[in-house]
Amino acid sequence: MKKVFILLSGLMLSLSVCGQEARPVIEDFKPSEVNQPGKQFPQVNSQGRVRASIAAPDAHKVQLDIGGTKYDMIKDANGVWTGDSNPQDEGFHYYQLNVDGAAVPDPGTQYFYGAGRWGSGIEIPATDKDFYALKNVPHGLVSENIYFSKLTNSFRRCFVYTPAGYHENAKTRYPVLYLQHGSFEDETGWQAQGKADLILDNLIAVKQAVPMIIVMDNGYAYSPLTNGATAKNEQLASVFEAVLITEVIPIIDSKFKTIADREHRAIAGLSMGANQTMRIMMNHLDTFSYYGGFSGTANYPDTNRLDPATFLDGKYKDGESLNKKIKLFWLGLGTKEPTPFPKSIGAFKAMLDQQKIKYEFYESPETAHEWLTWRRCLYQFAPKLFK
Amino acid sequence: MKKVFILLSGLMLSLSVCGQEARPVIEDFKPSEVNQPGKQFPQVNSQGRVRASIAAPDAHKVQLDIGGTKYDMIKDANGVWTGDSNPQDEGFHYYQLNVDGAAVPDPGTQYFYGAGRWGSGIEIPATDKDFYALKNVPHGLVSENIYFSKLTNSFRRCFVYTPAGYHENAKTRYPVLYLQHGSFEDETGWQAQGKADLILDNLIAVKQAVPMIIVMDNGYAYSPLTNGATAKNEQLASVFEAVLITEVIPIIDSKFKTIADREHRAIAGLSMGANQTMRIMMNHLDTFSYYGGFSGTANYPDTNRLDPATFLDGKYKDGESLNKKIKLFWLGLGTKEPTPFPKSIGAFKAMLDQQKIKYEFYESPETAHEWLTWRRCLYQFAPKLFK
Repeated sequence: MKKVFILLSGLMLSLSVCGQEARPVIEDFKPSEVNQPGKQFPQVNSQGRVRASIAAPDAHKVQLDIGGTKYDMIKDANGVWTGDSNPQDEGFHYYQLNVDGAAVPDPGTQYFYGAGRWGSGIEIPATDKDFYALKNVPHGLVSENIYFSKLTNSFRRCFVYTPAGYHENAKTRYPVLYLQHGSFEDETGWQAQGKADLILDNLIAVKQAVPMIIVMDNGYAYSPLTNGATAKNEQLASVFEAVLITEVIPIIDSKFKTIADREHRAIAGLSMGANQTMRIMMNHLDTFSYYGGFSGTANYPDTNRLDPATFLDGKYKDGESLNKKIKLFWLGLGTKEPTPFPKSIGAFKAMLDQQKIKYEFYESPETAHEWLTWRRCLYQFAPKLFK
Repeated sequence: MKKVFILLSGLMLSLSVCGQEARPVIEDFKPSEVNQPGKQFPQVNSQGRVRASIAAPDAHKVQLDIGGTKYDMIKDANGVWTGDSNPQDEGFHYYQLNVDGAAVPDPGTQYFYGAGRWGSGIEIPATDKDFYALKNVPHGLVSENIYFSKLTNSFRRCFVYTPAGYHENAKTRYPVLYLQHGSFEDETGWQAQGKADLILDNLIAVKQAVPMIIVMDNGYAYSPLTNGATAKNEQLASVFEAVLITEVIPIIDSKFKTIADREHRAIAGLSMGANQTMRIMMNHLDTFSYYGGFSGTANYPDTNRLDPATFLDGKYKDGESLNKKIKLFWLGLGTKEPTPFPKSIGAFKAMLDQQKIKYEFYESPETAHEWLTWRRCLYQFAPKLFK
């Protein structure tokens, strides 16, 4: 019996390696909801398989490249190549096509900034997709806010969500959540991939969340090089913390109807953004009172036991005092996240436990280090703010 | 001597046909300003040539497809293909790459919606680029406004520019310009390709234009199909005019601090948008008092003499009355625009002349039916509004 298992798992491994999967393909494919207007491909079926299609009459090899695997596509008599992926996790995924060795965006999809480039994305409908659906409820606005940053000597940009009613109610003032993207992403991610605006529209419409402003800035911020050195030759030090504290927050507080105190400011981020915002939170407890870390903590990628006396310069040494100051310390993680996230966040949680620091921990079922985890984190986190 | 001219022009024609040009290439290429962050290609040189480059080690033919011409690219020892276009007009152009027959976006650029798809764009720096440059002046905000349209039974979206100071000055109310894109474009065009926000930021900063709100909606709007017919089988009738008048304007007037009367409303558009907005203007002189038609008129594509008794149901019959009602009737056109624009707009102007209807006419030097024409039109038109 044991031999059969070994044989079977060996077989599954070999099937997986060559990019095929044993289960029969169910032919109920529908165009992806993030396709370009009028485009029929890519499509998604009820198994979560992605079917891509592209006309490339003179190509000799075309592949669908998604989730770390390249799937060979097949050419028909008209020169149109089509191919399916294995089932993908629910939620949003970046992907690309490969045409005779050229890695290119799929001309069928809208484009998203992630993995360090503008490229194709696809949406595998989630069982709980209702919470981030576009519904006929009052909608907030998302505004592009360009500002000149003296610290980086460059124009920068943040997106600002103002909740429904913000413009109509001239005198109402609102609390603010500062919300950061992950590595190789930018300030567009939380709206485009994260659907932060729709999640909040839906939560606010049923009074599960307090109407709030959300500010989404770019976590990459560096001092200008002054000595003629090029970026390649230097390990650039991030000035994002200073940009956020001394440039962005004052702009937001002067331009928008905020309640400008720590009781009405939250900060959260995903992955790299969780790491960044945790440091900023702990350095500026006079500025923020709520924290959300989605799939990341400040000890990343370290998985070792943390010593509160030295970790982050001892910022977690006095648990009693932190419990008084911090209104919410919230952590989230997908159950399918890869190494080192579970162990790294586990080590951080163990340190919080040791220090008797209160926190909440949420696990997103069956999701990895991807946007459905973070949509769910925001959906769980936002209702706990400013109450 | 005549023979020499014929020979020369024949030679130039043949050079042009095979995608090459006799003038030597000047090696002063720089990355295009609308490249993705960190991407070195595509590049543009001082002649306006575009140099594209893509790794496609297994391809046998790669082309740069811009301005209606496909230019063969050449493969180096590393499998990287590179190729130059002939000089392009100043301004913004859509383009794509062709890899063994697959028409794909260039992975080096940001993507824009035009020509009916999200795809690559490139910017040839214009001699007058200063007027739409990103400068350290007070910047307005551009907000994405999602609304449910009963007329189309769908969610729609407009972008709303609010000028610098809008949010800080709680009581100030502003006039509104409704500004429409062209065919196969959408509500993103005027900001992304048109730089409407930067043009107005710059004009308002030096007090050449009055601070105003700009609303950019999607000109494609159709009634839902009720009889099970598919869009392909029907000539759908546009309901954009009704959407704008009965849905968008009331939303804008309730959500934003507008001055909600005809004296403080302008409407303008480019190409298809000029055609649409001219009809809307003439049907709703109680709603708008300023009009701008950029590279388009309501007689498009007709180039024949217009009879004011019948054209647009006789809306131009009474020139004297129109001169009293309309504060500005403004038309613009690029000097290099193709057939039928010059003749079609010429026929329309002749009709205005015949009816003694006052109008202003602007010609954009050396530009075709492209975004630099329309940026310049907006730059010329906006200062004349609401004064």
